[in-house]
Amino acid sequence: MSEERLELDEPSKAVLREARALLRAKERRASGRFLVEGRQGVREALERPGVVQWLFVRWANAHDNLDLIALARETGVPVYAVSEQNLATMSDTVSPQGVTAVANAVGVPLEQALAPREDGRPVRLVVVCAQIRDPGNAGTVIRCADAFGADAVIMSTDSVDLHNPKVVRASVGSMFHLPIVTGVELTAALDACRAAGLTVLATDGEADTTLLDVGDDLARPTAWVMGNEAWGLPTEHLALADRSVAVPLYGSAESLNLATAAAICLYTSATAQRAAAN
Amino acid sequence: MSEERLELDEPSKAVLREARALLRAKERRASGRFLVEGRQGVREALERPGVVQWLFVRWANAHDNLDLIALARETGVPVYAVSEQNLATMSDTVSPQGVTAVANAVGVPLEQALAPREDGRPVRLVVVCAQIRDPGNAGTVIRCADAFGADAVIMSTDSVDLHNPKVVRASVGSMFHLPIVTGVELTAALDACRAAGLTVLATDGEADTTLLDVGDDLARPTAWVMGNEAWGLPTEHLALADRSVAVPLYGSAESLNLATAAAICLYTSATAQRAAAN
Repeated sequence: MSEERLELDEPSKAVLREARALLRAKERRASGRFLVEGRQGVREALERPGVVQWLFVRWANAHDNLDLIALARETGVPVYAVSEQNLATMSDTVSPQGVTAVANAVGVPLEQALAPREDGRPVRLVVVCAQIRDPGNAGTVIRCADAFGADAVIMSTDSVDLHNPKVVRASVGSMFHLPIVTGVELTAALDACRAAGLTVLATDGEADTTLLDVGDDLARPTAWVMGNEAWGLPTEHLALADRSVAVPLYGSAESLNLATAAAICLYTSATAQRAAAN
Repeated sequence: MSEERLELDEPSKAVLREARALLRAKERRASGRFLVEGRQGVREALERPGVVQWLFVRWANAHDNLDLIALARETGVPVYAVSEQNLATMSDTVSPQGVTAVANAVGVPLEQALAPREDGRPVRLVVVCAQIRDPGNAGTVIRCADAFGADAVIMSTDSVDLHNPKVVRASVGSMFHLPIVTGVELTAALDACRAAGLTVLATDGEADTTLLDVGDDLARPTAWVMGNEAWGLPTEHLALADRSVAVPLYGSAESLNLATAAAICLYTSATAQRAAAN
């Protein structure tokens, strides 16, 4: 696609209106679609067939996004060129990369997320977010889960909307890489995890047991339960876990950021599981 | 301090104007002061003598903050009650806790940050942020450095302003717990780290060596160099380190969030150092 030959359509007013409406959670729920901003997220979405409905590229950035335009065209996704102003109306932030997609909602049923993988391997590492509220944290936890090879992420009822633009941005495409379950009660989620053979470990900064004490059990198939960023896991939720575990702190900070704690637990589990398998 | 007896002054217009001005980086630099929002950050600041200049409490929340008001009065810090509107003018966000302080800038010279601690122990764990730009990342890295007992944080030239309100919020008080150096060239910072006996490890997602390969060397006194969130560490900066090290990734995510990678490296080093010392 050379510079001379790049021809792009402009979207109709109806298309623009539909895309903009997806900034609102209610419209996302009603339509089952959401917005994906930025090159990496858009690329990961385009690489999954049937996910992207429309691709919007800012005229001024079209030549920086020729690869994405080509990928969209190969897979039959309509590509629209829009003005900076129009792109801004479908974003809650400045979008320096000038590329946004409308995608179909991700999310799978609990049973599917916890079923053995295609090669028959049972699930071995799952993250359960209990009432996670901060979108940046939620997206970062999904990115970490993906990075450390988790099999699924489960977000309990009362968690932030998975399709919130800030969650999508912070996940940097990872939300398209692994099964994510939303809107399930914590009790039901943990029952299903146990039925799938997972030990349930809850993160709790106050726990007597630290990651260093868990030892060989870390290599077992595990579901990690992460609490809310402000109040952690209440006692009745901690009671649902097989064990409560703290990340050991050596300095003066009273606690870790939720996504940071999740990263350390997942990294430690994934490393222990792989060491035990070798 | 019972409810009946709580008497608080209102600030003069000049005091309000000075506090509001600190939302601007230029004013922070010129005055050597900055804003600290929220109960935990304010408490940590008040616990360090000579740090807080003024404490502002929203009238409607005064009785939720009696402990902070008492702490301020014990240490001779003027306490002012302000309206919700006035508090909002000294914030870049909504401040649900209704408490904000004006504090003197933190930050120490490089030599002081890397000098042996008061008990004569040489520094053993230092974080060097090379051109860190995102304020949330910078604050979270400082919080992690504090959590894992790092001796100092060094932020190179071209990093985000340490006293930016978003950095301060994300550090949740940790910026008052350990020495932080700003505005130093990366080369000078790493030379000083080596002179202080630290091995310099650079995080690099592309490195052949992973955290799992570093082995016993992780227990040595270490300075961890973290690159920019978008472009990492350029080749010329990687060349300044003794080794480049990747956090092993097991899944499909191409990279980790900077603060997440920092957390894992610091946790791993701190744990290895303590295991070796026992």
